[in-house]
Amino acid sequence: MRFSVEGIPGLPEIEPGADLAALIADAVAAGESAPLVDGDILVVTSKVVSKAEGRIVQADDREQAITDETVRVVATKLNPSGAVTRIVENRLGIIGAAAGVDASNTAPGTVLLLPLDPDASARGLAAGLRELTGARVGVLLSDTLGRAWRQGQTDIAIGAAGVQVFDDFAGRTDASGRELAVTKPCLADELTAAAELVKGKTSGIPVALVRGLGHLVGDLDLPGAATIVRPAEDDLFRLGADDAYDEGYRAGFDEGQREEPQS
Amino acid sequence: MRFSVEGIPGLPEIEPGADLAALIADAVAAGESAPLVDGDILVVTSKVVSKAEGRIVQADDREQAITDETVRVVATKLNPSGAVTRIVENRLGIIGAAAGVDASNTAPGTVLLLPLDPDASARGLAAGLRELTGARVGVLLSDTLGRAWRQGQTDIAIGAAGVQVFDDFAGRTDASGRELAVTKPCLADELTAAAELVKGKTSGIPVALVRGLGHLVGDLDLPGAATIVRPAEDDLFRLGADDAYDEGYRAGFDEGQREEPQS
Repeated sequence: MRFSVEGIPGLPEIEPGADLAALIADAVAAGESAPLVDGDILVVTSKVVSKAEGRIVQADDREQAITDETVRVVATKLNPSGAVTRIVENRLGIIGAAAGVDASNTAPGTVLLLPLDPDASARGLAAGLRELTGARVGVLLSDTLGRAWRQGQTDIAIGAAGVQVFDDFAGRTDASGRELAVTKPCLADELTAAAELVKGKTSGIPVALVRGLGHLVGDLDLPGAATIVRPAEDDLFRLGADDAYDEGYRAGFDEGQREEPQS
Repeated sequence: MRFSVEGIPGLPEIEPGADLAALIADAVAAGESAPLVDGDILVVTSKVVSKAEGRIVQADDREQAITDETVRVVATKLNPSGAVTRIVENRLGIIGAAAGVDASNTAPGTVLLLPLDPDASARGLAAGLRELTGARVGVLLSDTLGRAWRQGQTDIAIGAAGVQVFDDFAGRTDASGRELAVTKPCLADELTAAAELVKGKTSGIPVALVRGLGHLVGDLDLPGAATIVRPAEDDLFRLGADDAYDEGYRAGFDEGQREEPQS
């Protein structure tokens, strides 16, 4: 089993209304990569999809733009400097520091928001590429996200089309016949992580081609990346520790005031 | 920029005391891969390192083995079935469901613990491979981990030697001269995630070769994977939401009992 990951250079600066499928097909054709074939997976930085979809808004204040995109504050931390770090849930249910608001690589005074429906964007892109090239390709849209408990960021999948998002070992057994403890590797997040290694943040290469994993490519109606998001009510870490403590403290205090002290 | 990831088949079942560097070098030499060259990165499932290091213990009860490896319970959840889901911190500071205890692919009645010092294990392996092959390779040890907020698991780095663990963009600017918001991609976790796509869970291939990212390979004294772990005191999610709420509730209740009710 072997696959390759290569950056696709030569994409122009993306303007609102751009036909991204055509631009990517052209960039592949003009570059050193072999033509797209069945089973290829294109990992596209969601930022260029946002640009093509015109998701650029005026915002002098990035913090305000983040507030506007936030559906729920998950955790806050007052730093010694007086600044507040926020971890928030955005419209897509994705939890991170910036709610998907990107203020780098856009014109001053503007920020870039995430695509409204990244799975739909991925489907549109995959359908366009399949039509233009005749190759049955899959598409993932990536964004960069921090994590609980681990420093640094990795690229994760916020949109998927024609790519198997999870492997599923539920009920499968190991060589000794024991049920496997790890049941659901998130292939989509592993693919976007791999792609980040060639796209990088300063290289200006927003598209990577993953070749050799055709067994993960299927119909465009496969489940999308929205299925990766764990609903808050099922999540043991739906609130920051301090925030949950404070909420508990207030409830406990009120109850302690109401109840007669036990002697 | 282009790299490839290939599974290295042909490794025998690993016994305690096995010379893993020699076995990996032999497997590469016997397989279809070209000989190891400077800049190659080997991603090794930590399970085979544990086996070589004899980290197999008798344990009829996997839950008890997890308890023994736990330094701190991070979150608990009582399921409708009556079973308790635990998220725990292990000796290495890594937070997950199983504290690194693996009960699959080991003999019945035994479990496999993580290497005692995975960065040291990675250094030993990299030094051995460099000596045996003359190639300046890097080594990552991987484990499989769930995440907050996202379903499924990905492979992460628990040991690293001779591989740059983070990219670091702190202070670097984008094309418009604005400071980049994403400052620290975790290359090691992205590499182990990529490797999982060829190693899989049922293929029996515990080693992957990443070729073409030689700019990430350096001296064996580069910082290891222990630097990826965020100390609990710095983490906004150091406790589960319910657990922190309960802790706050108890403190608030006691305080509410002590204080005279405000009218």
